[in-house]
Amino acid sequence: MLLSLYNADEPLTIGILGGGQLAKMTAQAAYRMGLRVAIIEHGANSPAGAMTKIDFPEGWNSPEALEQFIEASDIVTLENEFIDVAILERIAERRPVFPTPETMRLAQDKLIQKTTMANAGIPVPRFARIDTVEQGYEFGATHNYPFVMKTRTHGYDGYGNMTVKRDNNVLVAFKKFTSDPDAPREVMAEEFITFRKELAVIVARNRRGEVVLYPCVETVQENHICRWVLAPALIEARLQKKAQEIALAAVEAVKGVGIFGVEMFLTENDEILFNEIAPRPHNSGHYSIEGCYTSQFENHIRAVCNLPLGSGELITSATVMLNLLGVRPGSGVPDTIVGLLQNPRVSLHLYGKKDSRMGRKMGHLTAIGNSVEDAQERLIKAEQDLVW
Amino acid sequence: MLLSLYNADEPLTIGILGGGQLAKMTAQAAYRMGLRVAIIEHGANSPAGAMTKIDFPEGWNSPEALEQFIEASDIVTLENEFIDVAILERIAERRPVFPTPETMRLAQDKLIQKTTMANAGIPVPRFARIDTVEQGYEFGATHNYPFVMKTRTHGYDGYGNMTVKRDNNVLVAFKKFTSDPDAPREVMAEEFITFRKELAVIVARNRRGEVVLYPCVETVQENHICRWVLAPALIEARLQKKAQEIALAAVEAVKGVGIFGVEMFLTENDEILFNEIAPRPHNSGHYSIEGCYTSQFENHIRAVCNLPLGSGELITSATVMLNLLGVRPGSGVPDTIVGLLQNPRVSLHLYGKKDSRMGRKMGHLTAIGNSVEDAQERLIKAEQDLVW
Repeated sequence: MLLSLYNADEPLTIGILGGGQLAKMTAQAAYRMGLRVAIIEHGANSPAGAMTKIDFPEGWNSPEALEQFIEASDIVTLENEFIDVAILERIAERRPVFPTPETMRLAQDKLIQKTTMANAGIPVPRFARIDTVEQGYEFGATHNYPFVMKTRTHGYDGYGNMTVKRDNNVLVAFKKFTSDPDAPREVMAEEFITFRKELAVIVARNRRGEVVLYPCVETVQENHICRWVLAPALIEARLQKKAQEIALAAVEAVKGVGIFGVEMFLTENDEILFNEIAPRPHNSGHYSIEGCYTSQFENHIRAVCNLPLGSGELITSATVMLNLLGVRPGSGVPDTIVGLLQNPRVSLHLYGKKDSRMGRKMGHLTAIGNSVEDAQERLIKAEQDLVW
Repeated sequence: MLLSLYNADEPLTIGILGGGQLAKMTAQAAYRMGLRVAIIEHGANSPAGAMTKIDFPEGWNSPEALEQFIEASDIVTLENEFIDVAILERIAERRPVFPTPETMRLAQDKLIQKTTMANAGIPVPRFARIDTVEQGYEFGATHNYPFVMKTRTHGYDGYGNMTVKRDNNVLVAFKKFTSDPDAPREVMAEEFITFRKELAVIVARNRRGEVVLYPCVETVQENHICRWVLAPALIEARLQKKAQEIALAAVEAVKGVGIFGVEMFLTENDEILFNEIAPRPHNSGHYSIEGCYTSQFENHIRAVCNLPLGSGELITSATVMLNLLGVRPGSGVPDTIVGLLQNPRVSLHLYGKKDSRMGRKMGHLTAIGNSVEDAQERLIKAEQDLVW
């Protein structure tokens, strides 16, 4: 199904809500298959918006822009999981939307997300809704300190999380999120997991329920932001398999269609606990572009178009990805990449963001190789040669 | 050097003369590095034109469009080697152009091209300028029949070539090209080479003269159009190396900067003869997208930007590409790719051309694997499942 259903003789147009790097890489995959791409985002010159004429920089909160975006698109998907579900439902009255509004209702709010997983029998950290500061004290008393206070929506890269170390921190944490003058948010609490490793599995699931499970990888965070992804995770095969099973169950629990990033904790007791699910392409899957037979972005397109999914297997023994994070504010363009590119076997991705800031995801580097260690060493060396 | 030199604070914009699939795949590589892309082509909705807002569908023969294209671009390159060199020279007065007008003068006309190679000591088939039909008879008498009559410019995929089997075919061949009412062309003659295999090597060369030689591959033509590319060519290592040396010499003979596809014949005596050079990305290099550490398209961008080149080595033992050629006129969109995609380890590229015709290059399939045979079998099976 590669012709538009709505605009005779035109190629199928994938409409993506959001224009950042995830949309950019999804758009790349769409173009490779001869499709067209429509982007709606708040702001001109987004990384994905630059790659298409069918661009709506007024964003989905503009009724006119949303209308034109719907008209231009055949199948709609997203790169940003915080879109108001009401907007997705409005689109879904007229166009296929994947992931569906139903999936988004189950996934967007971390409390509902966790509850859904727990109800499906998926192992999760202990958690509770926290509507009053008293409930916060109660959680700490029951499950010990430290625990994690989280906003139920709009958290990412550590924003929206706070570790509550003792009872006299509960009030501060609670107020920080619930009384934020710009964006007051509801919160929840979770037990603090002392993990041995953080794991992730990308899952693709198409409209027929066919599934591809990507390898279990290890993610390494620095300052709450993903820095490294090591594929495969250096854990026993049975644990890798367990992680994949949990990831699959998580996607099925939200009736997911599209591409999903499922994050998990590996505890000191070798237990695997569900952490979070992102109903979109995920940072932990960028390694798949060079590393796997089919990238997460291509399988994203195939899944929402209900096409057969491609193999998510690794091509070589190991693939490692290193995020290139902003080291200073200012220009989003590096001073020079000449030194970096003198490393001949690394793949450079720069997202084309105009402005940098500390910790901002500006691009990534990927190396494929015979071992995680070998690939990681090459990336460390290459990044040292990059001058921002 | 990733910022525009001409438009403050804007990312570097690569301007590509031509909007077909070669420009499309080059644009993909440019976007991955955070660059922008400008396309000038005759016609709207070209495969590459769809991927950018900076699109000039009036073409380079329109002075206004050319002017706007030059203004919008920082570095100019091409996917179409038949552009009037005078236009390239006009652009070169204001922007870096690679390959240079000088290279294009040496490469565009097959007679000048062959003469340049011969002068550089590169082994070539015997050839001659044919300005009169008498010279045609003379060539046949001297070098035997059959021989090949070729237009000196604008030939591709077999168009512009005719095999002259005996002396009473000379006149017909000569007139066919020189008296064509639509496009009369000058011609040359070459001895007919009974080859064992046709070989190709992609060469990247940047502005500093740094070079990357891709593997020696075998190309298999059907009806004069490239159908298969087998990487590496199944010939002795010393012959692969010889082919690479000839390819390098050919690119240096035209002072080439950018990416070049050099085609060669392997004779029954294991001699390697230069056949042609294309001063642009080449069909014989598409396998490099999945098959090599750095694709020809990425090295094209790096070369014209004078960045260090990436490794052209194969990632696995073998990679095979199969061209998807039009089997009927009509829509450029296949009826269904579902069957094809049920083959999990093939990479599908569809160029997004609106119309198909017999033999038109509509896309390609690539398989990477442990052997050429294994990859080729998978592609044969996958293509059988494609329904145009």
